[in-house]
Amino acid sequence: MPIHEVHLTTSAMKVVALAGGVGGAKLVDGLAQILAPENLTVIVNIGDDFNILGLKVCPDLDTVCYTLAGVANPDTGWGRRNETWNVLESLAAFGGPTWFKLGDRDLALHLERTDRLRQGKSLSQVTYEICKAFGVGPRVLPVSDDAIPTMVMTTAGEIPFQEYFVRQRCEPVVTGFRFAGIEKALPAPEVLTSLREADLVVFCPSNPWVSLDPILAVPGMRETISTQKVLGVSPIIGGQTVKGPAAKMFMELGIQPSALAVAEHYHELLAGFVMDEVDTDQVDAVQGMDILPYVTNTFMNTQSDRRRLALECLEFSKFL
Amino acid sequence: MPIHEVHLTTSAMKVVALAGGVGGAKLVDGLAQILAPENLTVIVNIGDDFNILGLKVCPDLDTVCYTLAGVANPDTGWGRRNETWNVLESLAAFGGPTWFKLGDRDLALHLERTDRLRQGKSLSQVTYEICKAFGVGPRVLPVSDDAIPTMVMTTAGEIPFQEYFVRQRCEPVVTGFRFAGIEKALPAPEVLTSLREADLVVFCPSNPWVSLDPILAVPGMRETISTQKVLGVSPIIGGQTVKGPAAKMFMELGIQPSALAVAEHYHELLAGFVMDEVDTDQVDAVQGMDILPYVTNTFMNTQSDRRRLALECLEFSKFL
Repeated sequence: MPIHEVHLTTSAMKVVALAGGVGGAKLVDGLAQILAPENLTVIVNIGDDFNILGLKVCPDLDTVCYTLAGVANPDTGWGRRNETWNVLESLAAFGGPTWFKLGDRDLALHLERTDRLRQGKSLSQVTYEICKAFGVGPRVLPVSDDAIPTMVMTTAGEIPFQEYFVRQRCEPVVTGFRFAGIEKALPAPEVLTSLREADLVVFCPSNPWVSLDPILAVPGMRETISTQKVLGVSPIIGGQTVKGPAAKMFMELGIQPSALAVAEHYHELLAGFVMDEVDTDQVDAVQGMDILPYVTNTFMNTQSDRRRLALECLEFSKFL
Repeated sequence: MPIHEVHLTTSAMKVVALAGGVGGAKLVDGLAQILAPENLTVIVNIGDDFNILGLKVCPDLDTVCYTLAGVANPDTGWGRRNETWNVLESLAAFGGPTWFKLGDRDLALHLERTDRLRQGKSLSQVTYEICKAFGVGPRVLPVSDDAIPTMVMTTAGEIPFQEYFVRQRCEPVVTGFRFAGIEKALPAPEVLTSLREADLVVFCPSNPWVSLDPILAVPGMRETISTQKVLGVSPIIGGQTVKGPAAKMFMELGIQPSALAVAEHYHELLAGFVMDEVDTDQVDAVQGMDILPYVTNTFMNTQSDRRRLALECLEFSKFL
């Protein structure tokens, strides 16, 4: 179809979504309910990736994949539904690491991914194969095939992300972030192309500091995205997050957590910004940054909430 | 206790048992019911060891450990009781390898062992730690810390052991065996010392070709064992095995499978040989090889069968 017709049908829009874990995955799921699979690409944070028991674990890739496959655990925001914990239980018996909760079904994915990586395949190739096996239609891309582990700088020193996030329950006071090896990281194949071909880039309601920043920090990403129409969705609602430490991080970094603060965080990249109706008071300030605001209910409790918010984003984007 | 008093009490005899999988583990379990833990050392075959999904799997070590820990699956002869298969089931969904049956609880051990080996620990060290965690009293030693994978030579070519054993169900016709790297393998620490300090060495009723031969083939083993009092227990009963391909292997190698054939296989090492009462007709031939025969019921169906056979072995050994 010629490019000038694309905007006529919402489902035919080519959309690239940048996502971290649970919040991002929910909006991605909403987009997937509307867009033709070949028109949705998700670029996923890999800063959370880490190794445990010799297994490569990619929490955000998995959350996106599980969510799109309909097998995500709706209660935890991570892992699979109907999960069992027999391996972990047995591991505990001989002093194996149990601080990171590896479910049996989840573990199967880590085993298989690690094995394929060991065979020399790239993370993007393995992600493609796994998503396909799960029947996931949209393209899911790790932002890079290179490791760029997020290091959380805190008043107690630098801490690898999962140590901070899971083991220390986000308790240390954050002073900054470092994405190790980011200078030399390359965008994974198709990442830049998909961005260039996109009619719209969506910044999902993910943690700006540790979910989207590691994506944007990969060399070439910011430059490429800055040429595109970008719509952000605030992960902060009424000064708080639905889940995760984003608000706490803003606070510890000396910034009042708010939808406005999120818009400011990305401001030079955003054309439009979707924020919750409880944050209507911040609309003018957002507009003052030359960003078109859109106010709606941004909670995504149900499948249809996800679809509705995604549809509003897509329709709103036509005004950008 | 001075060495001359050792034989006064059966439980104080220092015994080293050479074992492969299920049959060997049963007799070892019987010995463990009688001997003080510090007086029983089990030297275990590692020719079956292999890698799957990046995990180091040691089937014979695990069967011995699980059996002594009382967590072995009594029906299969491998793996753990009350096992679940959720990881394997999920692996199947994305085309992971499922020909080797990895139970969830079993998998925990492979994960933890592989992780500790990756940290630079030796197989014998990790085996020690794992057995300790399982509350296993006797010392369980892999014959070597070096890999010596058994290759099965068949009319269809050379096949790695687990491929032959599990995947091809022992169907190819055997022409011989090769233990890759055996020339350079070293006995694990304490293996030779335990043999030298033993009052009795027991060849458990394990497969001579692929369970005990790989143990005996490690440089230094045969020489050390030949200076000790050795009692063999036949894995062949009435020309058949309770489990496994030993009888089939004898046949394919042109040897009529029998208790006598087993005694001949080891003959220069054996002082005594325990055979089943159904094989009484072979007693004279065994004696003709200068090996003292002992006939009894060698089936080990129950815990008390194991204990009884082990006790008979120990008492009989006093006549050697």
